[in-house]
Amino acid sequence: MLLLIPGPVQTRPETRAAMAQDIAPWDNDFRPTYASIRERVRVLAGGVEGMHATLPLQGCGHFMMEAAIRTFVPAGGKLLIPQNGAYADRAVRLATEAGRVVVALPGPDTRPVTAEEIAAALAADPAISHVAMIHNETGSGIVNDPEVIGPAVRAAGRRLILDSVSAFGALPVNLADHPEIDALIFTSGKCLEGLPGIGFAVARIDSVTAAAGNAGSWAFDLSDVYAHALRAGWGSFRFTPPVQSLAAFSVALDLHEREGGQPARLARYRENARAMYDGVRALGMAPYLDWAHQGPVIVTVHQPADPAFELQPFVDALKRRGVLISNFWNTQAPTFRVGCIGAVTPEDIRGAVAAIDGALRELGVTRREASGNDAPRQKVSARDDD
Amino acid sequence: MLLLIPGPVQTRPETRAAMAQDIAPWDNDFRPTYASIRERVRVLAGGVEGMHATLPLQGCGHFMMEAAIRTFVPAGGKLLIPQNGAYADRAVRLATEAGRVVVALPGPDTRPVTAEEIAAALAADPAISHVAMIHNETGSGIVNDPEVIGPAVRAAGRRLILDSVSAFGALPVNLADHPEIDALIFTSGKCLEGLPGIGFAVARIDSVTAAAGNAGSWAFDLSDVYAHALRAGWGSFRFTPPVQSLAAFSVALDLHEREGGQPARLARYRENARAMYDGVRALGMAPYLDWAHQGPVIVTVHQPADPAFELQPFVDALKRRGVLISNFWNTQAPTFRVGCIGAVTPEDIRGAVAAIDGALRELGVTRREASGNDAPRQKVSARDDD
Ligand SMILES: Cc1ncc(COP(=O)(O)O)c(C=O)c1O
Ligand SMILES: Cc1ncc(COP(=O)(O)O)c(C=O)c1O
Repeated sequence: MLLLIPGPVQTRPETRAAMAQDIAPWDNDFRPTYASIRERVRVLAGGVEGMHATLPLQGCGHFMMEAAIRTFVPAGGKLLIPQNGAYADRAVRLATEAGRVVVALPGPDTRPVTAEEIAAALAADPAISHVAMIHNETGSGIVNDPEVIGPAVRAAGRRLILDSVSAFGALPVNLADHPEIDALIFTSGKCLEGLPGIGFAVARIDSVTAAAGNAGSWAFDLSDVYAHALRAGWGSFRFTPPVQSLAAFSVALDLHEREGGQPARLARYRENARAMYDGVRALGMAPYLDWAHQGPVIVTVHQPADPAFELQPFVDALKRRGVLISNFWNTQAPTFRVGCIGAVTPEDIRGAVAAIDGALRELGVTRREASGNDAPRQKVSARDDD
Repeated sequence: MLLLIPGPVQTRPETRAAMAQDIAPWDNDFRPTYASIRERVRVLAGGVEGMHATLPLQGCGHFMMEAAIRTFVPAGGKLLIPQNGAYADRAVRLATEAGRVVVALPGPDTRPVTAEEIAAALAADPAISHVAMIHNETGSGIVNDPEVIGPAVRAAGRRLILDSVSAFGALPVNLADHPEIDALIFTSGKCLEGLPGIGFAVARIDSVTAAAGNAGSWAFDLSDVYAHALRAGWGSFRFTPPVQSLAAFSVALDLHEREGGQPARLARYRENARAMYDGVRALGMAPYLDWAHQGPVIVTVHQPADPAFELQPFVDALKRRGVLISNFWNTQAPTFRVGCIGAVTPEDIRGAVAAIDGALRELGVTRREASGNDAPRQKVSARDDD
């Protein structure tokens, strides 16, 4: 089975083989593996030794995003969230339920937010201390670029929390060039091609120590995660970690490096996305995004107008052909989405395009253009099961 | 290597083999596995269909404990915590940082809390709505028995949150007999002998729905976990789960059942603990607890008086003999601890006792009685790395 989903992704056999072992997390034989993961992640993010630290949290990306917001934005504090996709909707909810005041900057989920929009929103409200932005929107496939937005945040004297959950390891970020970034967050099971279970923040040490007392949650206090790492000396993982995912992540980092690091991974994913984008167009379907806004992580496609098209039967027909895609969507209009990340090659993607053609034929879907049933989604799609 | 630690435990090869696969959590082929886990866990806890629900959370036991406290005790609400061990200390901190008011009932970590103590504390403060109690204290090895404490909580008209992280699957709890229990919590990597990564609550549905709006955290809101399960119909796991741990947990549940369920597992662990307790005594060492208070999960032993004894070299010497124990302790006096849970038999334990003897001889530890260096720990031990 070929997994074409935006996480948990298809992994390499070497990576998932590392899952099948019992490990004591604090064992002296495991400590170097864990310590080296933290160091390698910092380097991968362009973090500066002594200035940035890798802070892990067991769980998932939502947990890490709530932890980052609670840690850096005090209770009652204000943050700006460019709300142009499903994961931005989630950040809004995480921040609001944590008692932070969200200023939402709504936008269509078909293009990135612009520096001008951010600058105007920040100028309009001096009480906003932070911007929380989704790097790659895993709902639609657009990219909000920190190279574009970071300078606007910096110029306004504010701070940035970057949700790079579905981007880090493929899209470039060099923290050394981004003093405005308090934390970049990601998880083990996306573009670094590990297994799920761990969230990471790469954070500014000065910001994280200054934030002590903000979180209103021991579990989600990144300043305590940092303090714990210091206290234990060798960088103990606070609370029982999914240690098998850590072991596998270490192998995944080896493979990332061997492939040629972030530039090589990005190049492969871009080729994957290009092959899928062109492929579905050649089959008569309409990609959800203009090519200019198409990121490398996920290609989202309008559901065909033909009444013979229904998502679950389509997913089932594809699966019979050895390709697994998500059986839900989270864009403003009905779509299906195809992940282009994971241990997947452009050849795999071309095979998947042929499988899509076969599935559509099997279901008798002839009118393949967009259905036009494009009533904008209010908040999160009812089909949003991720 | 024989892992004698109280989680993540040694697992069976069949269980950990299930970790080494890529799985899409929402895939129709995986849904029945997940749905059956929730159902089997409810039955194992003696939960009543329609009255109790299994609510999972990715992460760890601390996360689940914070989630249960936030969900059932509103912000500013009061809870009583019998504070007789390291994990009770942690519950106190989790509740306090979440803005709940803790009434601590301090006690020595060498005996369980009594019904009389609980009744008196509840009578003294009518504002206390909940008791949060550690079932098996994984620091020392004592058991706070819900059969004893539950009725006192019930008689006082209050509610109980039971941290059964290191007990569930071995020590009995039958929720049908305990209407006062709002939630029992546990994790995948302890007495059910799965791999770490997932916390579970088995909760009263009426309590969890009445608690909507309490949590002050989307991530830790168990009422939303319940709502999500209903919304998705088939019981989708909210947010990306460590799905490999779920697959392995399903195998672990099969093996638990095949062994004879909770009574058989308890019998094996009790035999393990008996063999370790008698074994270390025969070697001249002093168990931390009187036998009357010794639970089946962990045997804690006073560090020998001999100055030749140091914990890490002892752990290393044991490891060279194929036995791994924790290299930290969290009791009021210096101890070492030996886990008796996991895929471990009394024969294994007898082998471990021989290995302990060998390690002590190698280090030249002749005075093996308690060091007497028993200054009570104030809060958590400085060696507490778990
Ligand atoms: C951009 C983005 N942010 C956050 C998340 C949440 O991560 P998780 O599902 O691990 O909680 C995701 C998950 O796909 C994501 O793509
Ligand atoms: C009784 C008890 N409660 C809570 C926890 C915390 O669990 P975790 O380490 O998974 O966060 C533990 C862990 O050993 C425990 O034994």
